[in-house]
Amino acid sequence: MSGRHFLQIPGPTNVPDSVLRAMSAATIDHRGPEFAQLGKHVLAALKPVFGTTNPVVIYPASGTGAWEAALVNTLSPGDRVLCFETGHFATLWQEMATSLGLAVDFVPGDWRHGVNPEVVAEKLANDTGHTIKAVCVVHNETSTGVTSRIADIRAAVDSEGHPALLLVDTISSLGSIDYRHDEWGVDVTVAGSQKGLMLPPGLSFNAISDKALEAARTAKLARSFWDWQPMLAANERGVFPYTPATNLLYGLKEALRLLDKEGLPDVFARHARHAKATRAAVNAWGLEVLCADEREHSGSLTAVLVPEEVDADKVRAIVLDRYDMSLGAGLGKLAGRIFRIGHLGDFNDLTLAGTLAGVQMGLTLAGVPIDPSGITVALEHLQVAP
Amino acid sequence: MSGRHFLQIPGPTNVPDSVLRAMSAATIDHRGPEFAQLGKHVLAALKPVFGTTNPVVIYPASGTGAWEAALVNTLSPGDRVLCFETGHFATLWQEMATSLGLAVDFVPGDWRHGVNPEVVAEKLANDTGHTIKAVCVVHNETSTGVTSRIADIRAAVDSEGHPALLLVDTISSLGSIDYRHDEWGVDVTVAGSQKGLMLPPGLSFNAISDKALEAARTAKLARSFWDWQPMLAANERGVFPYTPATNLLYGLKEALRLLDKEGLPDVFARHARHAKATRAAVNAWGLEVLCADEREHSGSLTAVLVPEEVDADKVRAIVLDRYDMSLGAGLGKLAGRIFRIGHLGDFNDLTLAGTLAGVQMGLTLAGVPIDPSGITVALEHLQVAP
Amino acid sequence: MSGRHFLQIPGPTNVPDSVLRAMSAATIDHRGPEFAQLGKHVLAALKPVFGTTNPVVIYPASGTGAWEAALVNTLSPGDRVLCFETGHFATLWQEMATSLGLAVDFVPGDWRHGVNPEVVAEKLANDTGHTIKAVCVVHNETSTGVTSRIADIRAAVDSEGHPALLLVDTISSLGSIDYRHDEWGVDVTVAGSQKGLMLPPGLSFNAISDKALEAARTAKLARSFWDWQPMLAANERGVFPYTPATNLLYGLKEALRLLDKEGLPDVFARHARHAKATRAAVNAWGLEVLCADEREHSGSLTAVLVPEEVDADKVRAIVLDRYDMSLGAGLGKLAGRIFRIGHLGDFNDLTLAGTLAGVQMGLTLAGVPIDPSGITVALEHLQVAP
Amino acid sequence: MSGRHFLQIPGPTNVPDSVLRAMSAATIDHRGPEFAQLGKHVLAALKPVFGTTNPVVIYPASGTGAWEAALVNTLSPGDRVLCFETGHFATLWQEMATSLGLAVDFVPGDWRHGVNPEVVAEKLANDTGHTIKAVCVVHNETSTGVTSRIADIRAAVDSEGHPALLLVDTISSLGSIDYRHDEWGVDVTVAGSQKGLMLPPGLSFNAISDKALEAARTAKLARSFWDWQPMLAANERGVFPYTPATNLLYGLKEALRLLDKEGLPDVFARHARHAKATRAAVNAWGLEVLCADEREHSGSLTAVLVPEEVDADKVRAIVLDRYDMSLGAGLGKLAGRIFRIGHLGDFNDLTLAGTLAGVQMGLTLAGVPIDPSGITVALEHLQVAP
Repeated sequence: MSGRHFLQIPGPTNVPDSVLRAMSAATIDHRGPEFAQLGKHVLAALKPVFGTTNPVVIYPASGTGAWEAALVNTLSPGDRVLCFETGHFATLWQEMATSLGLAVDFVPGDWRHGVNPEVVAEKLANDTGHTIKAVCVVHNETSTGVTSRIADIRAAVDSEGHPALLLVDTISSLGSIDYRHDEWGVDVTVAGSQKGLMLPPGLSFNAISDKALEAARTAKLARSFWDWQPMLAANERGVFPYTPATNLLYGLKEALRLLDKEGLPDVFARHARHAKATRAAVNAWGLEVLCADEREHSGSLTAVLVPEEVDADKVRAIVLDRYDMSLGAGLGKLAGRIFRIGHLGDFNDLTLAGTLAGVQMGLTLAGVPIDPSGITVALEHLQVAP
Repeated sequence: MSGRHFLQIPGPTNVPDSVLRAMSAATIDHRGPEFAQLGKHVLAALKPVFGTTNPVVIYPASGTGAWEAALVNTLSPGDRVLCFETGHFATLWQEMATSLGLAVDFVPGDWRHGVNPEVVAEKLANDTGHTIKAVCVVHNETSTGVTSRIADIRAAVDSEGHPALLLVDTISSLGSIDYRHDEWGVDVTVAGSQKGLMLPPGLSFNAISDKALEAARTAKLARSFWDWQPMLAANERGVFPYTPATNLLYGLKEALRLLDKEGLPDVFARHARHAKATRAAVNAWGLEVLCADEREHSGSLTAVLVPEEVDADKVRAIVLDRYDMSLGAGLGKLAGRIFRIGHLGDFNDLTLAGTLAGVQMGLTLAGVPIDPSGITVALEHLQVAP
Repeated sequence: MSGRHFLQIPGPTNVPDSVLRAMSAATIDHRGPEFAQLGKHVLAALKPVFGTTNPVVIYPASGTGAWEAALVNTLSPGDRVLCFETGHFATLWQEMATSLGLAVDFVPGDWRHGVNPEVVAEKLANDTGHTIKAVCVVHNETSTGVTSRIADIRAAVDSEGHPALLLVDTISSLGSIDYRHDEWGVDVTVAGSQKGLMLPPGLSFNAISDKALEAARTAKLARSFWDWQPMLAANERGVFPYTPATNLLYGLKEALRLLDKEGLPDVFARHARHAKATRAAVNAWGLEVLCADEREHSGSLTAVLVPEEVDADKVRAIVLDRYDMSLGAGLGKLAGRIFRIGHLGDFNDLTLAGTLAGVQMGLTLAGVPIDPSGITVALEHLQVAP
Repeated sequence: MSGRHFLQIPGPTNVPDSVLRAMSAATIDHRGPEFAQLGKHVLAALKPVFGTTNPVVIYPASGTGAWEAALVNTLSPGDRVLCFETGHFATLWQEMATSLGLAVDFVPGDWRHGVNPEVVAEKLANDTGHTIKAVCVVHNETSTGVTSRIADIRAAVDSEGHPALLLVDTISSLGSIDYRHDEWGVDVTVAGSQKGLMLPPGLSFNAISDKALEAARTAKLARSFWDWQPMLAANERGVFPYTPATNLLYGLKEALRLLDKEGLPDVFARHARHAKATRAAVNAWGLEVLCADEREHSGSLTAVLVPEEVDADKVRAIVLDRYDMSLGAGLGKLAGRIFRIGHLGDFNDLTLAGTLAGVQMGLTLAGVPIDPSGITVALEHLQVAP
């Protein structure tokens, strides 16, 4: 097909050309002096993106690995962890915890809300023996477009004086939605390269609080590849305990430069603005956004409920076939009921306009009765200066 | 700025990533066997794009050079040539002819119409002494979005039994708008790489009829770099008489593969469809398309007249500043009166939608009173299957 | 520095330009139909490189991860594994096994020999209770340039009728040195992308025998990210259970094409020829190759012992500083005693000549007394047709 | 074939990866503000490379075009020009001059010497009527590896008080061999992108003295594409009178950065050092360097005479076939008698060592009786610190 594919899934996102070009530089010796400079640079430049002055470790692995790293470095076999059914990825993470030998307390949810801080407080209040060792929260549920309010959740934990660690998945929020590892008292932040960081998949991250580092000393889950200790020791010299994904690190350096140049507050504002314009279009079409709480709308993606009689995957197939645009599918229990519009990463107003135009035309061609004013309403939002 | 720039000038056009990647391969020996294979391949694969089985020569130079080549290979000092003021580029070409020592008969025009075949017939009928040696026509005026009907012009020449050569500039039409060098009896077709061929600027072309080759034997304008003879001789072996632009030839090979894969008839239909959707939007906004003859609308760009009191360059500046989109300026006598939307090359429905959204928002922000239904009307066209 | 860096460590190796270019294509939807085609293609095309018709799984992680995957999928806490101290990486792998809760029987070695098949036979003969669940062997010790004879080791295991699994690390041999997963009866082959596969680091592999798959059903080591089962299930459809390293897979497709085009037997012969020329140079210089057994010379790298009074790292530093070439350091107990010349991956005669020239000049500048005929002797070998 | 091709023709040269990557950035609007910045930058940064503070114009064309530009901008039909048969390219240039209508006074030569300043003085002394309007000299004959001493030639012109312009071709010397447009009083310097500037072919240059600008006002040769005047006018604003080769300009910016980073004096010293090591190898082999005057050895290439009974093209074919290295052929009257080793552009000691190793092995395989100490002698030179 002619022209550029519209990759509007909620990640991997559209990788900037300059990042792809940076990645195509020749691979260098990962034990030499030139590499050490690169390593030190990216390890330092990552910290402000997480809102931390503590260490951030980089795995040459995709995001799922960083989930595992967060668990195996801080917990011991049989430890209780508190998880919340906010969507498909929260469900997968607790399944991983179970697989790794943890005892998961999984609070059910309707996939339209984030974690309720009051429930966190209640659960911890009931855990007077402090058997819950960690609370696991997905900041931005990629499967639903619903965020959880991390600061409020931290406050809930603190209000109970409970010592549980707070582990947060920011895979589809980091670099897109305001996030503050230190200020919000997160113990381990899990992230990946292929969303707001605008890289291809293949790198993942843990930002680590002092408390999490302390927990790692006694945590007994078996670990080697994911072990923080040799990683942190090698990182001191800008290197890694085993072969790093050198070319993705070239891309990371460039992506961090781009984020810094735009400025994180402007990056967050841009995402919020695009999310708002998208919701305005959805509402104008007469459709419903999946997220049911105004406080929890995602800045990086919007999940759209289709009418009962419509198969959302048919809409997606038409959009892909006719307009060369990939949209996200409904996952797990939302299969066929929603489609997801990714509007994160390296993105701008006109690409959003093209995206919403494609959704509008796809819905029409799929026979979904919509009001065609959606695109016009979105443009009205995009006419307002950022 | 975040996201991808919208390069919607009528050329250079958006270069496909695969073409840019092809161009970044290592430069090879232009006298070696591997190069000869490349040379033969592209020289052959170019012919169908021009609609010819005759030779096409490739200059390592931009399109303006191919204008000069067409003139210096076929004409002698003092020869009369018939040119038509269809716009800025037709005006520049006849200035070049004058500079090179030709006697130009320049038929005035209003920049809203193509060449009138009846005028051609009349001019040649009056030239009973056959002093006019060539008729120069711009197939698609990049400055106005108006095409000239080449087949009808050829018929007009033929009807008078006049021996004048027909030289045609297809710089912004080749690979975008139906064109047939052989069938339409064109003697020299001038083209460049940076429009429908989806390459960066730096290559230009002459397709050459037998009659033009014959004329070259006696043409007396001084020439060396542009001389067809050594070029054609070297091309027999897939090589060039001087250093070719090797890496652009890599890109050309890939671009020709893309055109062939989509199929030229589908390429032309796609451009026509996008042009029609664009004109529908312009009309819905309540603005006027510059081209004044239904038969002469360009498939590759649309020039839009702004109301008298508006400075079109102000609209363009807003669109560039706020929406990171480049539009074409009004050139020469149209400066400030029009802007030009390029919808050619590597392009698709959603990018057109984004483009028209940007124009609509830019017009609104510039205070031009428009009806905002333009984008919706365009989408209605794009909902119809190609 | 001007010119191209000589990356002559034994991996990461010089990545072909066409692989780097392939990797710079836009990231696509890892759940869409285009990706599934890519996935199926590379999963199938990998098999002959391993010499297997069984499944090969691909991790979006570097090679160390594939070590862990081989262990956690086949073994249970407390299981005995038989390891051999053939060098630095064999030592690290058994440390990993210990970390993961396995009981390692580590046979000491002098880092100049491969695994002795007779010792394997003896160890297994003594294990009448079949408490040893796996034998772990590094096919090509990257730290020493010594190979182990896998077929003979398999025969030793079989001769004892012992049921132990055979796990083999081919990180620096796959795609460089003859290797046959099926024919040699290997149960898990561990590999990485950044050596003979000519890719940047970031992908790793397990080729899995039926016996290993069977073992995985009852293996009790905790696992999630590395778990073969969901991987194999998703691979049936060409996809992955979590986000794959899409752009590295683009590179893999191209690298597999290059290997197939050259032909694996020719690839192996090329490496063997370069290794032989290198050893000839080393001997001519009057220095000693670390590998002490003629049957165990590596085709992919050569470790060179320096005279007692010389610091090998000083030689390396001079070579890097003056000639912009990276050589491998002595690792672990060989630190300062050897340097390692990588001659694997995308490599040819003249690059080897340049490499050996750099080593010769570096040795001279470091004051190591050598006979300067080394380079000439190497050229004599390279003058013989492959 | 595996590994990197050795492109050791005397241009196009090996293009640095970073230049190729720079060239693969998206094409931008050549009339927009971003382009103007680029244009101003490269137009200014080029000047020191030519050793001038006067304007340098950039053509979107290969080097042959810049030859034509130098002539048509400064001369009138029938003007006498003084040319010297220093080799193939000097011969072609004077043929071009003849084609363009100039009267060429062509001083014969043996293709082993540069221009003799005494002959220049003599010729001009005899031209008491000042009918000779220009002296054309090739600074570094790419076909022979012989330089001409420009400063001495200028002095010869000046000593006669003759007003002739001095036009100098630096296509294979600029950015490789010391050159000073202003200091040496050159009027037009002709250059191309694909040699010392380390770019693919497709750009060419004229550096222009005040005297040449003055001559352009009255020069009567027909010109349009090559006309300096509109070029200089547009360049004031960082733009061009017709579409520039945008992506090559991206590469030019990066190449100029690389030259500046290394420092021109170091660039020249590196080339001289490599040329000296090459000549040492040639002499050690027992072969003869074509250049017959010690003062005129080229820093960028070395032409090697083969024994009478040997076909140099057979040597080249063997080297290409067996060692994947391209060498330059003997051109014109030197066909089959020499081969040319390019050692210019992005190049270093080890690549030179590989190059000379390939030549040595190719000569041996071709049956040329040589002393194999050539490579060792070259390394002795390369062991000496720059």
